[in-house]
This record gives sequence, C-alpha cells and structure tokens, in this order.
Amino acid sequence: MNESEKEQEKAPIYEMLIAHALKRTTPFHVPGHKQRSQPFYNGLHEEQAALDTLMSIDITELSGTDDLHDPSGAIARAQELAADCYGADETRFLVGGSTSGNLAMILGICEPGELVLAQRNVHKSIIHGLALSGARCVFLEPSVDTRSGIAIAPTAATISAAIAQYPEAKAIILCSPNYYGMTADVRTIVELAHAADMPVLVDEAHGAHFGHHPELPQSALQMGADVVVQSTHKMLSSLTMTAMLHMQGQLAPRPAIRQALRMVQSSSPSYPLMASLDLARRQLHTQGAALFEPALDVARSIRRATAGLPFELLHADDPLKLSLKDASGRLSGVALQDMLERRGCLAEMADASYVVLALGPGTRQQDGVALIAALTDIAKELEEKPDEASAANANIERVEEWSRQALISEPVTIKRRIAATTPVPLKAAAGRVCGEWVIPYPPGIPLLYPGEPIGEEVLAKLERLRDAGARFQGATDVSLNEIQVLSEGDRL
Amino acid sequence: MNESEKEQEKAPIYEMLIAHALKRTTPFHVPGHKQRSQPFYNGLHEEQAALDTLMSIDITELSGTDDLHDPSGAIARAQELAADCYGADETRFLVGGSTSGNLAMILGICEPGELVLAQRNVHKSIIHGLALSGARCVFLEPSVDTRSGIAIAPTAATISAAIAQYPEAKAIILCSPNYYGMTADVRTIVELAHAADMPVLVDEAHGAHFGHHPELPQSALQMGADVVVQSTHKMLSSLTMTAMLHMQGQLAPRPAIRQALRMVQSSSPSYPLMASLDLARRQLHTQGAALFEPALDVARSIRRATAGLPFELLHADDPLKLSLKDASGRLSGVALQDMLERRGCLAEMADASYVVLALGPGTRQQDGVALIAALTDIAKELEEKPDEASAANANIERVEEWSRQALISEPVTIKRRIAATTPVPLKAAAGRVCGEWVIPYPPGIPLLYPGEPIGEEVLAKLERLRDAGARFQGATDVSLNEIQVLSEGDRL
Repeated sequence: MNESEKEQEKAPIYEMLIAHALKRTTPFHVPGHKQRSQPFYNGLHEEQAALDTLMSIDITELSGTDDLHDPSGAIARAQELAADCYGADETRFLVGGSTSGNLAMILGICEPGELVLAQRNVHKSIIHGLALSGARCVFLEPSVDTRSGIAIAPTAATISAAIAQYPEAKAIILCSPNYYGMTADVRTIVELAHAADMPVLVDEAHGAHFGHHPELPQSALQMGADVVVQSTHKMLSSLTMTAMLHMQGQLAPRPAIRQALRMVQSSSPSYPLMASLDLARRQLHTQGAALFEPALDVARSIRRATAGLPFELLHADDPLKLSLKDASGRLSGVALQDMLERRGCLAEMADASYVVLALGPGTRQQDGVALIAALTDIAKELEEKPDEASAANANIERVEEWSRQALISEPVTIKRRIAATTPVPLKAAAGRVCGEWVIPYPPGIPLLYPGEPIGEEVLAKLERLRDAGARFQGATDVSLNEIQVLSEGDRL
Repeated sequence: MNESEKEQEKAPIYEMLIAHALKRTTPFHVPGHKQRSQPFYNGLHEEQAALDTLMSIDITELSGTDDLHDPSGAIARAQELAADCYGADETRFLVGGSTSGNLAMILGICEPGELVLAQRNVHKSIIHGLALSGARCVFLEPSVDTRSGIAIAPTAATISAAIAQYPEAKAIILCSPNYYGMTADVRTIVELAHAADMPVLVDEAHGAHFGHHPELPQSALQMGADVVVQSTHKMLSSLTMTAMLHMQGQLAPRPAIRQALRMVQSSSPSYPLMASLDLARRQLHTQGAALFEPALDVARSIRRATAGLPFELLHADDPLKLSLKDASGRLSGVALQDMLERRGCLAEMADASYVVLALGPGTRQQDGVALIAALTDIAKELEEKPDEASAANANIERVEEWSRQALISEPVTIKRRIAATTPVPLKAAAGRVCGEWVIPYPPGIPLLYPGEPIGEEVLAKLERLRDAGARFQGATDVSLNEIQVLSEGDRL
C-alpha cells in the first residue's frame, strides 16, 4: 500500500470532529444546543435518539475546525482526498446538494447576457441556474430512446451544429445519466467542445458511483468533462443533501465557480453532512469495487426473476437502476409503484410506463428477495384479475413528434421571477412570452420554460399533443386548454 | 390546555420519520445507504456512531414523507405550528441556513434593476442576494455605538430621508440584532416604511430566541416586520444550517419568495435537519421561557463575576450575548479569545477589542463556572505579567470619521462575478469601479462592495483610515496601499 492509499484510509473531517468532541471543551459558540447529547430534545422515541447523539459533532467554525468557504485544514485535506479518489484536479464538498453545484457552475461560467448551450431536458436546478445567472441559453433537443420514449441527451450531430452556429458560447451543459440510468456519449461531446475551446459542464447527479466498478459506466470526469456535479448521497453512501463538484483541466473557471459556491451555500454549513461525504469517499476508496457487489448481485437476481414474470426491464447503462413495466401495458408505472408499496417495497419514482428502482451500497440480499416476492405476488394478482383497467399511458407512440422539432432553439433568457401572468387560450398564445413550465408527458422533455417566446411551430406541436390527450407537467392547466403568458404585454 | 397548545406538543416531521422507520419498508429509493444503520461506515469511533444511527431517518420524498418545496403533509403541518409559535402568517423551513432565506427574500422582492434600500453593514448573504437579484441598492449608513465603536443599524432619520428620496424602493433590508446582540429600532423603521407601503425585510439570524422570555428583546415579527429570517440553530436548538423564514401581512410577496426558495434550496433537502427544526420549535413552545433560564442564570453569574475582574462587558440588548474586553486595553479581543481557548472555553468570535460569548438552550451551570475560573486565571496571569504587549487596536477612536460620511449612497449594482481586476495605487482609484470588498476595521462597516464606483469622498476617507493604520478586511492588500478595480476599463 503506497502513501496515497494509506492517506485514503483517513477521514480528516470525521476524525477532526471526533477529536474535537473528545476534548470536552466548554462551548460559548453556536449552535445553541452546545453539543449537549441526550436527553436534550424532549420526548424522543426510544427507537431513535439519533438527533440527540448527533449533536456532539454538530459544531461550527472554530480554530481547528476549518472553514468550507476558505478551507485550509481538515476540509481542504478531505477535498484533496476526494479529488484523488475521483480523478479530479479539484473537488469541492457541497452541503446544498447537487442543486448548489449546478447553480454555482452556471453562475461561475458566464456573465449576464452571455450565451451557453444546454440540453433541454435538464434538472430544474440547471434552469434555476440559468435564470439566476441571466445567461442566454440555446436549448438542444435530446435524442429519444425509440423503444421506451425516454429522452436521453443531444446527439453529437446536434452538439456539433450548435457549436458551429454559436462559437461564442461559454459552455455546453449536459445532464447524464438521466433518472433511468441512461447515459450520454460524453466523450464525443467533450471532444467536439474542446476542439472549440468550450468547457463541458455535466450534471452527473445520478452517477456518483460511475467508474468505480468494471460493470458501471465510465464517469464524466473519466470522459474528459471539465466540471462535474455528483449527488454523492443518491448512489453512494453520504447523507441526503450532500454532493460534490469536481473540476479538471484548464477550461473550468475555478475561481469564479468557487466564488459562486460561497454565494449559494450556507455560511453555516453542517459538519455532520461534510463528515458523511468524507466517510463515503473513504468507504468508496477503501472498499473499491466490492462496495457494489451486494447491490449488483441483487440487481442480477431481480433481472433473472423478471424474465419469468410479466414485467419488462428497460435497457439502461447503469446496472443499479432497474426500470420495470407491466409487459401487458395494463398497469401504468405509477400503478405498479403503488402495488409494490402496498407490499412494502418503495421505488425511487414512477412514470406513465415505468417504475424506477435505485439500488446502492446499502442494498442487501433480502431487498432482492422482498422485491421478487412482491413482483411474483403482483403477477398473480394480475392474472386473477384480467379485467384490471388499463392505466398505462399510450402517449409514448407520439414520440415521433419529437423528431420533427427544431434541434437547436433560439437564444432564450429564462425569467427568474414572473411578476404576473395571464391565462390565454392556447391558440391565442402565439407571439406571447410563456409564463410557466410546459412539460408534455411523455417523454417529459420541457417544451417551454418561463421567459421563452411562444412561436408558431411550438404552438402547433402543443396543440397536436394536447389533442392527442397528453398531460402537461408544470402547467397550471395540465390539459393546456389555456396557457399562462406574461401579463406585461410582452410581445415578440 | 387548549387545542392549539396540545398541537404544539406534536412534532409532525419527526413523528413521521419515526413512523416511517418503524414500518421497516424495503428501500429501492435514494439515498444510497438505504437507511441501513450500523455498522455501515467502516471504522467509526466508539464514542460516536451518530452518523450511522442517523441513517434510519435520513430519507427522501416518498408517499407520506411530504415535500419541502410543495408541502401538504407533515412538513406543512410543522411549518404551521412554527408560524403559530412565532406569530407569523406563514413560516418556511430552511435547510440552507439563513443564507438561503436572505437570498430568497431579496430574489422574491425585486426584479433586476429595481431598487431596494439596505443598511450597509449586513451579512454577506444579503450582498450575495443583491448581486444575484440584479437589484440596484441604496446603502444606508448605520449608527455607531460611540462607546464601543460597533455599528448597529441606520437611525430612523436616515431611513426617513431614504424613503423620501427613493419612494419607488421595493423594500428596506435590515440586519438586527448584530453579532453582539445590539438591536435596531425595528418598530419605528417599520412604521416609517409601512406609511410608504414599503415592506421591511429583517435578517434576524442572531435573534431566533427573541420574544420568548421577558428578559429577551422583542422579535422583529412582534415589531411588525414583513419578512424575517432567523437562524434557529444559532440561539435555539436545531441542527447547524437550519433556519426559518417568516412572513406576515400584505406587503410580503409570498408566492415570489416561495418560488425563490425553490431555486436556492436543495431539491434533496435533509429530513433530519427539517426534523430538528420541528423539535426545536416544540421544545421552545412547550418549555417556553423556562428554556432560557439556565443560560440566563449563567449569564448573570458571569456578569457578577466580571465586576470583580479586570474585564469590561459591552452593553447589549440580548442578555445571552456577552462581549468582554480587557479593561486595561492591553489585550485585543482575539488575544483574549486565545487565552480562553487555552483554558478550554471556546468563544463565538472575537474582534480587535471584544471576545463574544454566545449562550443558549444548551448552556449549563458548569459552563459559567468554567468561564469564571478561566477569566480569574487570565486576570492573575495579566497581573503577573504587567508588560504583556498591547495588542488592542486603538482605531476605535476614529469612529467619529463615520459621522462625516454620506448617510445615503447612490444606487449601486453589486457585481455577481468579477471577470478580472487590476490592482491600482489607492490614490489612482478615483473614478474606477471597485473589484473587491473593502471593510475597514473597526468598526467593520463595509465602505465598498464589488461594483461600487470609487468616488472622491470615499477615497479620501479610505486614505485617512489607511494612514491612521486601519486594516481592511476583504481587500487583497489589507493595508490598502493598492486596491483592486475592474479591469475592463469601466469608468464612472
């Protein structure tokens, strides 16, 4: 074991917190609980005194406890170990989730009015970052998996065309993998972008585990992305709301991103959350690929069992995301999720077709056993009730609609704050500015964001989808007979 | 006990988490640790398995666990109970600290380019909110406590003049109490503002306990403020990074502030943090004034003991903030803080003169005993070493400088992102745009923010302060022989 590996067995923040707790100092500093352990809160359930026991390490910036916003001690060391573990040049710990990382990378990359290229189907935190930054954004249409109707990422051809049309763009913003564990061809996109001196920013919230096991996809960092945000809590083992932002190479504006992180993250960051990032990194590095074996085993057993049951599995790149649908099409994903929940199995999410299961380091053999038993039982129930009403949404057939739309939008400035909107009949909305999010489902690719002009082409598409029975997430009127537009009389 | 009081004995979020944990469901959702309790992280210190035991309640949005960003269940109920306890019309739980509340209230109150009035000596999160919002801000000079040299808040006269000059302003932003527990006359300021239909937004980060004991000052809500942000963790008993945003009356743009909270807070908020807000509110409401008696007793004992020792106490409105200085002026506050720390007593902060002690619900009698013993010991050491070098900063005499400066600034747009700055000799900076924070200490009132034009008047003041030996926090050159200005050739 070399020096670097030995260092990886340390957890500097956690060890600092324990050392501090053992000093038994007298606290005249915040927080107000003064690290008094139980009994502190009254009436805690005997099952769970965790909130009390946590207090001894819930401290603040003191001499020796370092400062997340200007780290030089335990936090700096923990971030260096994380950078080494993930292969980044620099890693910053996030206590505000991937949300804070996504906001900061956009705020750091551009001045108000500057242009960025972003895939249209991103997490709302990316849209919020665009709104806060005042950037102009050109949206790139994602490709859609024709079998499932699920949106993935823009193709290399779309990226290439966008770079040629907007060489002044400050960055390309991607979201990969998607919620279902399907990934973009980040390597090719990075090559195209770097040839134009353009950095690639990746929201890899669902892929913190990538690159750490031969059966897992490569990580965005491994494929050359410049700035990568990962929700360590989602697919690794840190506490909820913790995440990391990684940077590498010369194209990432590191000081500006650090400054933006100081703006969007709490000036009283939680030390237990930071310590959990430290411990999750230590666990990942010291256990390596073995950390994922139990979950991969469970995934394999579920796959095997599903083959003999009336459920279909989505093909995804991430083996720890299992998306199941009723092969007969009678049950929607949401209905299947409900049936699983009644049998004690809680899924990550569901859509009109699929229920998405997320496995992780905490997954144990009994989870797979429970799920297979539940699916077997559901299959039996379906067999016994052949007339169960079909709840599946057949809109997926309309996926071909998407191939007809413009792949590259006009530059748009997302509205941060909508002072007042007015509902107008959809057909009267041409030439107005959209005042809400309009996300026809499926495939869940947003068609309009607040601040986007409503052109004739998008209007025609919305009408076709509405008339075919689509539902519109984000819209006040989910049937979209009316659409909210800005009241101020804005016109194109 | 009436119905409302009985309800206050509940802790809906905490109880929901316990009920969920007891269900022993099979997790196929995030986070990756899947609520597996110990042993999960390897190598935890026997003293402290808190991070492991916490996991059983570290969950995500599931059916029945509600959603912070669109609450309708346990979180909605917990927020209602908090609003009732604090006397607000609406309370929102913050998992991103008062930082997230300060950002959101500013983002919610104004569109880019709209004007707000703000006291100049605010927490950096207010400045960050101004920068992110693109607001134009008129800064109001605070009054300064002549005895201590510490800045408090603008006077009613300054507020009145500012309202008359800028009746179009969207809000007045105050920070009260300051770090030392000194408060603004919020009631009078609210009366002036409301007469002009202007809401008052108060960063009350250090005053979450106000109004809950007869010896504590009234809260900003009690004095009529429209939007109030409180760090529940600082002076009450929730976990670090938790806070609340309260709203009352008709002037607060509640939907816009809610929307801004959705933008700046994590889309994966921490349930244990939310539960600690719930438990802290329950503790506060059910124990009432009694919650503060132990800390008030300790404060009284320290005050009594200090009278017989060579230390001076700052007069502050908050009895739970004790600011001590060496009466002889030989020791700086920082030096006194170090001497206390060597004796195991950790202070909240120190400046050139004072060391600030924060007491709270967790404070116990032995803390007072330890502090008095430490101060007695330090007094003895000082007596034995009468030649101890003086480290105190005598700049406080220059407080009168401040009375000469303009009380109301020109409108300024704070720069969110400084692309490039150049150092220029201070005398050559007239007419340039400042590229850094310049905070002469004492009294710690920022004189320039990034984006502020450097006029002749402020330049003359900076030169006088520099020549008198002041230090400039935030500036690259703390002696301010040079100052960073925007490189882009911006001129007034």
